[in-house]
Amino acid sequence: MPGRANGATVGTMAARGRSETFLVTTFTSAGRARNPDELIVEEPLTVQLDGTTVTTTMRTPGHDYELAVGFCHGEGLLGGAVVSAVRYCANGSASSTEFNVVTVDTGGAAPAPRPRLGTTTSSCGLCGNDAIDELCARLAPLAPTPPIPVEVMLALPEAVRPHQRLFAATGAVHAAAAFTADGSVLLVREDVGRHNAVDKVVGRMLLDGTLPAAGLGLFVSGRASFEMVQKAWAAGFGTLVAVSAPTALAVHTARRAGLTLAGFVRDDRLNVYAPERP
Amino acid sequence: MPGRANGATVGTMAARGRSETFLVTTFTSAGRARNPDELIVEEPLTVQLDGTTVTTTMRTPGHDYELAVGFCHGEGLLGGAVVSAVRYCANGSASSTEFNVVTVDTGGAAPAPRPRLGTTTSSCGLCGNDAIDELCARLAPLAPTPPIPVEVMLALPEAVRPHQRLFAATGAVHAAAAFTADGSVLLVREDVGRHNAVDKVVGRMLLDGTLPAAGLGLFVSGRASFEMVQKAWAAGFGTLVAVSAPTALAVHTARRAGLTLAGFVRDDRLNVYAPERP
Repeated sequence: MPGRANGATVGTMAARGRSETFLVTTFTSAGRARNPDELIVEEPLTVQLDGTTVTTTMRTPGHDYELAVGFCHGEGLLGGAVVSAVRYCANGSASSTEFNVVTVDTGGAAPAPRPRLGTTTSSCGLCGNDAIDELCARLAPLAPTPPIPVEVMLALPEAVRPHQRLFAATGAVHAAAAFTADGSVLLVREDVGRHNAVDKVVGRMLLDGTLPAAGLGLFVSGRASFEMVQKAWAAGFGTLVAVSAPTALAVHTARRAGLTLAGFVRDDRLNVYAPERP
Repeated sequence: MPGRANGATVGTMAARGRSETFLVTTFTSAGRARNPDELIVEEPLTVQLDGTTVTTTMRTPGHDYELAVGFCHGEGLLGGAVVSAVRYCANGSASSTEFNVVTVDTGGAAPAPRPRLGTTTSSCGLCGNDAIDELCARLAPLAPTPPIPVEVMLALPEAVRPHQRLFAATGAVHAAAAFTADGSVLLVREDVGRHNAVDKVVGRMLLDGTLPAAGLGLFVSGRASFEMVQKAWAAGFGTLVAVSAPTALAVHTARRAGLTLAGFVRDDRLNVYAPERP
């Protein structure tokens, strides 16, 4: 049944398989054997904003409305407009589009989406600094919040793991989680794409009316790329904790944003990359 | 100095840093310490085909011509046209665009690129089966080749590791490698994006005139997604070996393509996902 969250009409989520079991052949030194193996499902999702397609991404089905809303938010496409409805497909039935098209509606309040690809501009060069400058023009630096204790950050992988059901089954999926300064895990999402997992967390919070995420942290089970920092910053998270390495551009961006960035969280150690001198 | 490969004019590759050293703060149970840490560089690369932008991707600088050519090939954008030149930027100097724009030229022989995003069609739904059908319409099933021995596939992670210089330094980069049926590693590329690493391998082979890669295998250091299978198929590799898990859609696609797909290559075991009964 349609529900309501943060004033938006949110249609029924489709029940979808998120993993699929195959019979596969395992080769070991003992010979070959046929075994069932659970694999993560990957399907294209097209996201529309007020009827215009803004992206198509390969994702794991489920939490599609959150993904669509979170993507639009992270890319700055909403421009502060309120989401009035989220539904499968604008111009067909949900089943005819296989639940693979989601439309985010703002009643035209969002700026008309500009094509992101396929356009040649006269100043066609873009470097990492330009990418950061573009974000700075759109996003204000984060207001300082009390630092999240190192012990809280170190405990995150263990705290999030019980929620990584798809990872446990398939070993092929990323997780993102929102957490509090005392280490409570508020929300976990999994997806074959790590950017999608973050979009699903942010989208849920937007629909719940809990953005900006001031004082909260975002945990990601993999690397911290520029895109991860961009999404965390846009959602107002003060801290981003990554199990694996950040990229150089992610560190430069976090430092400009005023975002605390920790990485390589392993057992009893981690690195803090931003701020430069914690 | 400009060189020539496969008849194409290939301009000078820019010397670029591929990793960057930061001073970071490490927290352990013994306290905090300042340490140098080498991080992978991530920069946007815009790829143009005959002057029209076809994608912008975050990549690790280096082998940019290979990436641009490999991307165009894998996406079917060349349509069989011969690449006559590859160079930095069509309408500015390489340095003014920070070596972040590469133009692939076919003298207009390639079909005009269609926008891939930002377009709403009447049949807006696309599911995994549609995606496979689209590939089948463009790519013929692979001709059968002698199977690559399991022992050769099991030895690949060790054989490729000495070539993963950036991974050893940063821990944040994927590798792709072309290998022969007897296990010789022909070509290894690394990139912050695993699809880019594959594009760089395929682009090098196209420029060298060694495509299709019939009888050869493609090794990837991470997961095997739909996109990896698509790129391997388009390049004519008969076998794709992934260290980690495939997705369900990758397996369905490999089975349709006639591509051997192995995954979870760990120590002395691996799974064969395609063909269904090896």
